[in-house]
Amino acid sequence: MSEPIKKVVLAYSGGLDTSVILKWLQETYGCEVVTFTADLGQGEELEPARAKAELMGVKPEHIYIDDLREEFVRDFVFPMMRANAQYEGLYLLGTSIARPLISKRLIEIARETGADAVAHGATGKGNDQVRFELSAYALDPDIKVIAPWREWDLNSRTKLIEWAEARQVPIPHNKRGEAPFSTDANLLHTSSEGLVLEDPWDEVPDYVYSRTVNPEDAPDTPETIEIEFERGDGVALNGERMSPATLLEALNELGRKHGIGRLDLVENRFVGMKSRGMYETPGGTIYLEAHRGIEAITLDRGAAHLKDELMPRYAELIYNGFWFSPEREMLQAAIDLSQEKVSGTVRLKLYKGLASVTGRKSLNTLYSEKVVTFEDDQGAYDQRDAAGFIKLNALRLRLLGRRDR
Amino acid sequence: MSEPIKKVVLAYSGGLDTSVILKWLQETYGCEVVTFTADLGQGEELEPARAKAELMGVKPEHIYIDDLREEFVRDFVFPMMRANAQYEGLYLLGTSIARPLISKRLIEIARETGADAVAHGATGKGNDQVRFELSAYALDPDIKVIAPWREWDLNSRTKLIEWAEARQVPIPHNKRGEAPFSTDANLLHTSSEGLVLEDPWDEVPDYVYSRTVNPEDAPDTPETIEIEFERGDGVALNGERMSPATLLEALNELGRKHGIGRLDLVENRFVGMKSRGMYETPGGTIYLEAHRGIEAITLDRGAAHLKDELMPRYAELIYNGFWFSPEREMLQAAIDLSQEKVSGTVRLKLYKGLASVTGRKSLNTLYSEKVVTFEDDQGAYDQRDAAGFIKLNALRLRLLGRRDR
Amino acid sequence: MSEPIKKVVLAYSGGLDTSVILKWLQETYGCEVVTFTADLGQGEELEPARAKAELMGVKPEHIYIDDLREEFVRDFVFPMMRANAQYEGLYLLGTSIARPLISKRLIEIARETGADAVAHGATGKGNDQVRFELSAYALDPDIKVIAPWREWDLNSRTKLIEWAEARQVPIPHNKRGEAPFSTDANLLHTSSEGLVLEDPWDEVPDYVYSRTVNPEDAPDTPETIEIEFERGDGVALNGERMSPATLLEALNELGRKHGIGRLDLVENRFVGMKSRGMYETPGGTIYLEAHRGIEAITLDRGAAHLKDELMPRYAELIYNGFWFSPEREMLQAAIDLSQEKVSGTVRLKLYKGLASVTGRKSLNTLYSEKVVTFEDDQGAYDQRDAAGFIKLNALRLRLLGRRDR
Amino acid sequence: MSEPIKKVVLAYSGGLDTSVILKWLQETYGCEVVTFTADLGQGEELEPARAKAELMGVKPEHIYIDDLREEFVRDFVFPMMRANAQYEGLYLLGTSIARPLISKRLIEIARETGADAVAHGATGKGNDQVRFELSAYALDPDIKVIAPWREWDLNSRTKLIEWAEARQVPIPHNKRGEAPFSTDANLLHTSSEGLVLEDPWDEVPDYVYSRTVNPEDAPDTPETIEIEFERGDGVALNGERMSPATLLEALNELGRKHGIGRLDLVENRFVGMKSRGMYETPGGTIYLEAHRGIEAITLDRGAAHLKDELMPRYAELIYNGFWFSPEREMLQAAIDLSQEKVSGTVRLKLYKGLASVTGRKSLNTLYSEKVVTFEDDQGAYDQRDAAGFIKLNALRLRLLGRRDR
Repeated sequence: MSEPIKKVVLAYSGGLDTSVILKWLQETYGCEVVTFTADLGQGEELEPARAKAELMGVKPEHIYIDDLREEFVRDFVFPMMRANAQYEGLYLLGTSIARPLISKRLIEIARETGADAVAHGATGKGNDQVRFELSAYALDPDIKVIAPWREWDLNSRTKLIEWAEARQVPIPHNKRGEAPFSTDANLLHTSSEGLVLEDPWDEVPDYVYSRTVNPEDAPDTPETIEIEFERGDGVALNGERMSPATLLEALNELGRKHGIGRLDLVENRFVGMKSRGMYETPGGTIYLEAHRGIEAITLDRGAAHLKDELMPRYAELIYNGFWFSPEREMLQAAIDLSQEKVSGTVRLKLYKGLASVTGRKSLNTLYSEKVVTFEDDQGAYDQRDAAGFIKLNALRLRLLGRRDR
Repeated sequence: MSEPIKKVVLAYSGGLDTSVILKWLQETYGCEVVTFTADLGQGEELEPARAKAELMGVKPEHIYIDDLREEFVRDFVFPMMRANAQYEGLYLLGTSIARPLISKRLIEIARETGADAVAHGATGKGNDQVRFELSAYALDPDIKVIAPWREWDLNSRTKLIEWAEARQVPIPHNKRGEAPFSTDANLLHTSSEGLVLEDPWDEVPDYVYSRTVNPEDAPDTPETIEIEFERGDGVALNGERMSPATLLEALNELGRKHGIGRLDLVENRFVGMKSRGMYETPGGTIYLEAHRGIEAITLDRGAAHLKDELMPRYAELIYNGFWFSPEREMLQAAIDLSQEKVSGTVRLKLYKGLASVTGRKSLNTLYSEKVVTFEDDQGAYDQRDAAGFIKLNALRLRLLGRRDR
Repeated sequence: MSEPIKKVVLAYSGGLDTSVILKWLQETYGCEVVTFTADLGQGEELEPARAKAELMGVKPEHIYIDDLREEFVRDFVFPMMRANAQYEGLYLLGTSIARPLISKRLIEIARETGADAVAHGATGKGNDQVRFELSAYALDPDIKVIAPWREWDLNSRTKLIEWAEARQVPIPHNKRGEAPFSTDANLLHTSSEGLVLEDPWDEVPDYVYSRTVNPEDAPDTPETIEIEFERGDGVALNGERMSPATLLEALNELGRKHGIGRLDLVENRFVGMKSRGMYETPGGTIYLEAHRGIEAITLDRGAAHLKDELMPRYAELIYNGFWFSPEREMLQAAIDLSQEKVSGTVRLKLYKGLASVTGRKSLNTLYSEKVVTFEDDQGAYDQRDAAGFIKLNALRLRLLGRRDR
Repeated sequence: MSEPIKKVVLAYSGGLDTSVILKWLQETYGCEVVTFTADLGQGEELEPARAKAELMGVKPEHIYIDDLREEFVRDFVFPMMRANAQYEGLYLLGTSIARPLISKRLIEIARETGADAVAHGATGKGNDQVRFELSAYALDPDIKVIAPWREWDLNSRTKLIEWAEARQVPIPHNKRGEAPFSTDANLLHTSSEGLVLEDPWDEVPDYVYSRTVNPEDAPDTPETIEIEFERGDGVALNGERMSPATLLEALNELGRKHGIGRLDLVENRFVGMKSRGMYETPGGTIYLEAHRGIEAITLDRGAAHLKDELMPRYAELIYNGFWFSPEREMLQAAIDLSQEKVSGTVRLKLYKGLASVTGRKSLNTLYSEKVVTFEDDQGAYDQRDAAGFIKLNALRLRLLGRRDR
């Protein structure tokens, strides 16, 4: 610990770790604690968090429990999906994209309650500490940030539980033994890492998955769905208009059923090490395929290729915690501009782990059967133009070839 | 037609179109024709091409039939896979990567036979004409290129067949009716486009697929395989060392069986239009997943992210026909350098259209359980370092936040 | 020539070439010609163009002479300068940026007058034809474009003048001999190429320069100026507010006097060849230095570096004629967003060809003496943070070093 | 301080700061100190460093004084110049590029002498600490690094001098007062920052410059020189072959005389703050212009534009200290490949701060007068090809225009 703190807003899940942190903050800093528990669609009851916080002496007016699901999908997940963002080619950034929203709310609550610090339960080895803190500092440069995992010496599960017991922090029964892995969940995904997953040669045990059925157990019959987009964002499923969170929830249900969106990945953390994680992004995986499908007919090549080239950088920024940075906002401005005509309908087939686009249509389509046809196109395209096109594209290569032969 | 031609090397498949072209070249240019038929693993008998060429008066010493399968995979497919190249995020470039090799051989044969021109059967609307010709011009700046589809007026199937019949060009029975789509095949993939595929809302009919079973008809039991890599290239399957082409063939067999590698895509052609194609890349899809898997543990983050950022450009260059260009070679030099330690083994599960990495190991692994563990790491990583890391990464954002509030 | 044309809008300078084109269009296409003469600050009288057009039978209501100087600088030059755009590291794009504006006006006039075609006097070897036509097609996909230099056979100066004399096209006296080089001028720059400039080893003769004094003849005493910026654009010189065009004109005067902005360049044309050109961009060169200077203290590093990385692509798009393309607009959106706080004052010293920033200040400065000082900073920055910052940045390199030793 | 150290190699300049550090290391760590003094062309006598080191008890065999000038220019400066690297568009990276070489030698000496640590005199606010340490860790992952400025509390000049006096560390007379700014020098450049330079609105006082005359005092007559390149590197000046360091020294002399290469810059440090620096890079500025000049006629457009796009990233890597990283090496491989034909001669005019290319020639030139000429080119280029080139480049824009009107 370092400087004196008057009041701290804690990102509080109600689980063992953040309960210990709550107590530790009170004890170590002698400060008032405000708890903030967000519903990001992680699928857990949040009211127990209130009871626990009260039990540990948090004032009722200092307990915040907010349903952020719509904001999460509308202002974070969908904008990111407009970029077709995948970190290291594969990861849909489910954890990364939730952190800036939590920090944003932490800072808002700090302002509302006059707190001078925020605290989180992320460890000192992971990316989440970086994401929480970069966002917090960007939104309030003078905020103090407390990261207990970097400060205390409770560096094993046993010590943590002993510490908790000594102070009568409520400990769920199933936490007494070592958890075989660590998880994070929200409306976009569930991730797991650590322990039984630590050897990247070992297959992920089936019990680690919680959001999707094993593709082998998924229905033997494919299911066909249609997703409708307006200006780059999903707005309807099978003809029924839905809010962003409702749409993602519905896609999650479909993805769960068909075993879609499992990913076993070794990734490079911002803090410099490789880690192995398991991700389940059922709805997001379907949504990304669909978004690519609608872009394919509505986006100009120049725009599409620029997006493709910018994407890895954009995804890296989100992964590294720079959501609230000028460069992410610049890229977003470019990406968003490209989405103005990205409207239409995509049909997908869902089957045993696969989400495949099988059709796409749009009033804004740039695809022209008349131009592309093998049949007589009645002058829509003059094949002779291709000769000049090739000749001038070849000119520099020919001059080069002449020099170098 | 334009300038006088003495001798032309024709990329000759033995099919109807290039047979008509053979005759047309003889008739229009009054020149000698050399035929070149490449075995790129398209899975067709090539000797009939010899008989047809002879029948149309090509001298035996002017008939070239070459097995290029090993060269194709070793010098084109594998180098491209080192980049994890996918055009527009999805297409594995199966057609694009074969064209430069055909052009390379056309130019070599032109030199051997003293020909002053090469000819190909690609249409004036497609990408292949560009790829053939850019490669040809790059390798021989003074070569003449004849693209009959851009010159003649046989712009419908009926006209073509009439023209052929009038000159006794042999016409296969099944070509008398209109083909429902156009295809290209080689060891890496089969593509189809046109006609029944022209409406991008219509699902691709199952009979269009020829290289893979429908995932619904694939085995109900997953199959696990192991691929071994050395310096970025695959060298063994399930412990058995194989040459590049043999390995890809074996993966194709596995992909076919499990329905892996189907892609229904609307893409942007270099010549400026969108087209809809169907691709089957069974072995290539498995190989790409595996390559990503082995890179994940052996490639440094800086190298991996640079590769990710360069990839879209690299894939675009190949798609557009710039294989033989200084910029592709520069990117290849960068990519190849990154692969020196990309050696090890990847385990994959194949099941109903999915190829999923389930494990990877390597003597060159950069993954360190000791560093990443949630358990006590005995000093391998000092969590306190993270505080400074975050503070300095946040500094500019804080200065910005202070200015802008 | 090809299709019948009813009415064509010609980009008409009043000079010999476009006067011949005017006549040639009338004669070849038998169509009505509308002339459009733009004042882009090229420093020539435009009214003589009216007289010549009338003389050649253009209806008075079909003669357009527009002062586009403010629009040129405000909507084209300044937005481009926000990007610090330089093609191939050096060229300030003076010609490239004028073409889309001319095309825009051509298309507007075509709509006003019911014309079905536009025509320009750019040759078939240069970039300008591409820029004119890409812009025209983007703004009106159905417009017909006539490029006489690609159609007629007046491919030498002698033939052109003979043709003109035979039809009594007015020929200025000084055009009877061969011009020693070809020029283009507007408020941003003057360019020259061809003839005496064709050997890139030969020094550009001093008489080719027209917009700047030779630095050797410039004043022996430096001159200090201040330019003020608001949101990325120049708004005042030495404390006096000025419109965009007025500011650029004033900087041109200063640049001329001090011999600033000369450039002798061999560049790569979009059409595939290298050309050697001489550019004078007096005011633009000063402006660019100043803009960089104000960005240096007001732009965040993340934004600045992203801009640096996007710049070459952005400049290439403008050079190649893709101003009116989705990808240029996407990049512009990103760049413009970065400029919101780019306000303040830059002081420069002008001296014999050099424009050097000697000071910059801004209410939006991100530069903090308190943080950067060598003296005791009273806690603004904790030097100990650097240790952790370095340690985590080094982690992947150390893991790599351990593996590879 | 932290862990016990047996022997440490100190980057020792012989100046006050590193002399204090030498003593401080002996006192604080009780360890043996090995001193390493590099001649990088900073223009100072190095033998006094030996005497001082001996005086402070360093064993003669532990005093290393190495002339690294040729290695510096050949293996660091020239490879960097091949990329035309400029950080933030302007800075020639003179300090950044020297640090990895010093670290390389520190590690080599540590191995030779069995030392377990290295130490440097860079402060905790700057970039140099990062560059030293990232290089050191990359080359020896187990090395310990001591950065006294981050450890001790001698955080003001007065304290430092008191400490030194108390221990009889030799103090040069001119160091007793506060130095008005801090400098770094090597063969490529001299930089200054701090104190009188801290307000970015204040003009840099003339006495800060030490490597160049004020342009106003430079000769009134221009001087013309010729630099010859082979495979991307300079090899001769005015016809005389020279080693890399000799060539750079000769160019430094010319640059000094003509007042070339002064730069007043506000830049963004890797550690997150903006700083204002003054740089003098006389020879390097001339060299860079010349290198660009020879590339202009020998480098293909594709290669040149790829280099331009990669350059900002490459420069950033060097600035940030990642010379010994896989991604810098990948970029170098790409850049080096592009330089194979970059040979020829460039003529420049030097005059009062300006180095301007006035001519370039090469046996490898890609510039073709025959192709580019305004005169009849006798078929080298068919202007009609341009029509098709433009039409196909415009196709997507026209389809877009049709959709969006």
